[in-house]
Amino acid sequence: MVKGTLFYEGKAKKLFRTNDSAVVWAEYLNQATALNGVKKDQINGKGELNNQITAYVFDFLKTKGINNHFIKRVSSTEQLIQSLAIIPLEVVVRNVAAGSFSKRLGIAEGKILDQPIIEFYYKDDSLDDPMVIDAHITYLGLASDQELEQLRQLALKINQALKELFDSIEIVLIDFKVEFGRQKDGTILLADEISPDTCRLWDKKTNEHLDKDIYRRDLGDIVPVYQEVLNRLEKRGK
Amino acid sequence: MVKGTLFYEGKAKKLFRTNDSAVVWAEYLNQATALNGVKKDQINGKGELNNQITAYVFDFLKTKGINNHFIKRVSSTEQLIQSLAIIPLEVVVRNVAAGSFSKRLGIAEGKILDQPIIEFYYKDDSLDDPMVIDAHITYLGLASDQELEQLRQLALKINQALKELFDSIEIVLIDFKVEFGRQKDGTILLADEISPDTCRLWDKKTNEHLDKDIYRRDLGDIVPVYQEVLNRLEKRGK
Ligand SMILES: Nc1ncnc2c1ncn2[C@@H]1O[C@H](COP(=O)(O)OP(=O)(O)OP(=O)(O)O)[C@@H](O)[C@H]1O
Ligand SMILES: Nc1ncnc2c1ncn2[C@@H]1O[C@H](COP(=O)(O)OP(=O)(O)OP(=O)(O)O)[C@@H](O)[C@H]1O
Ligand SMILES: [Mg+2]
Ligand SMILES: [Mg+2]
Repeated sequence: MVKGTLFYEGKAKKLFRTNDSAVVWAEYLNQATALNGVKKDQINGKGELNNQITAYVFDFLKTKGINNHFIKRVSSTEQLIQSLAIIPLEVVVRNVAAGSFSKRLGIAEGKILDQPIIEFYYKDDSLDDPMVIDAHITYLGLASDQELEQLRQLALKINQALKELFDSIEIVLIDFKVEFGRQKDGTILLADEISPDTCRLWDKKTNEHLDKDIYRRDLGDIVPVYQEVLNRLEKRGK
Repeated sequence: MVKGTLFYEGKAKKLFRTNDSAVVWAEYLNQATALNGVKKDQINGKGELNNQITAYVFDFLKTKGINNHFIKRVSSTEQLIQSLAIIPLEVVVRNVAAGSFSKRLGIAEGKILDQPIIEFYYKDDSLDDPMVIDAHITYLGLASDQELEQLRQLALKINQALKELFDSIEIVLIDFKVEFGRQKDGTILLADEISPDTCRLWDKKTNEHLDKDIYRRDLGDIVPVYQEVLNRLEKRGK
């Protein structure tokens, strides 16, 4: 596999073409952002940690029958993924109230939800990723009703698997964000990344944040925290 | 019917008890507000206009088989309504993109939607009336899934009737907000008001705003505009 030209430079990753048009070369960056990029910092070691955590999680999800874009890790900061047409939706699954959910609805952080709640946000930085309802999504042509049903089912299945994974390393999965993409034939695959940047992870015993809220809320250095998550995953084994 | 004690003083109306516990005495105020009360003005004549317009519209809706709380007008600014337990949701129906819909989703004002879009907002001033999805509504215990289905059907039926009404007076119904309440036995009734404060109404020929956007956007005096809506309704007859 040969690394080709850069075609997308995001806030957390760079994407490169390869000699295979079906394969993308993703490079995880040492950059943290919050508030839609208003807060931004270079953080040495972050790219490596998220690349490894995402690789671990996507491999784990495959063992649970959840097809995804991950092919293999090719360096400490790089991985090969299947090229997809990303559906411009952030699919958020919540098990416990936190973050914008708590703020918008006036529900204390930490309140356990009786069942997972799925929210959709329209991935559009110029609009600040607004929450959208099904009628908005179909009106905007982002996904069909059948696809939305599929996204919901996949999101719940991923939630089950991730809760099990994090529970086994003494972490509570509060919420997470995933993205999906379409293969040429329309098949929907889980894409993007799953890392402490995209999940809220609380230590089961201490309730400490083991995620990007450390950065968002200026609670300290994220590197040792993300490292702790990776250590626990590696200790767990395959 | 005897006007009793004031029990709710809102931004647009005061509510009084009556000697009949099932009946509320509503007084429409000469006050306009926008931006959740940040912008606020006394506007002579407004209460009278909205009381009369709402009375006309709710009477019209009854003729279309849409049960509602309206009993009768008792003065130029007052009406009797059935006492309901209000469901704390603003139910918004949109036929044409405008306002927050346009801003949030980046869709030009005036773009016709291929089908009506229904949105729900949680009526909570301290939270700034956030948009909510069904899962939020049931989690918060605001309405059951069956009630939500009923609200959607009622909203579409009201939309059909109102489009017909306004079309007959050369006005395009862009969008509107309604509230519903429960009777003691759980029956859901249309409540609150339907007026240029709660609808976007554009003149069919000129596209001029005949609604509260005149006030929100500082486009002039609302009194002659609301008067124009009432005049057209009265000219139309019963
Ligand atoms: N398999 C894939 N094929 C193509 N694009 C992908 C794939 N997986 C993820 N992407 C996209 O690659 C980009 C990853 O970069 P990054 O996460 O840095 O973006 P970002 O700055 O967060 O911007 P965005 O708001 O688009 O996520 C995202 O736009 C993501 O949707
Ligand atoms: N039939 C009814 N029975 C009881 N309450 C009603 C009925 N119809 C409307 N209401 C309520 O009466 C109040 C009307 O006052 P007004 O419209 O001035 O309130 P507001 O300042 O807009 O506040 P809100 O945000 O609650 O609407 C609203 O809270 C409305 O929900
Ligand atoms: Mg991203
Ligand atoms: Mg009101």
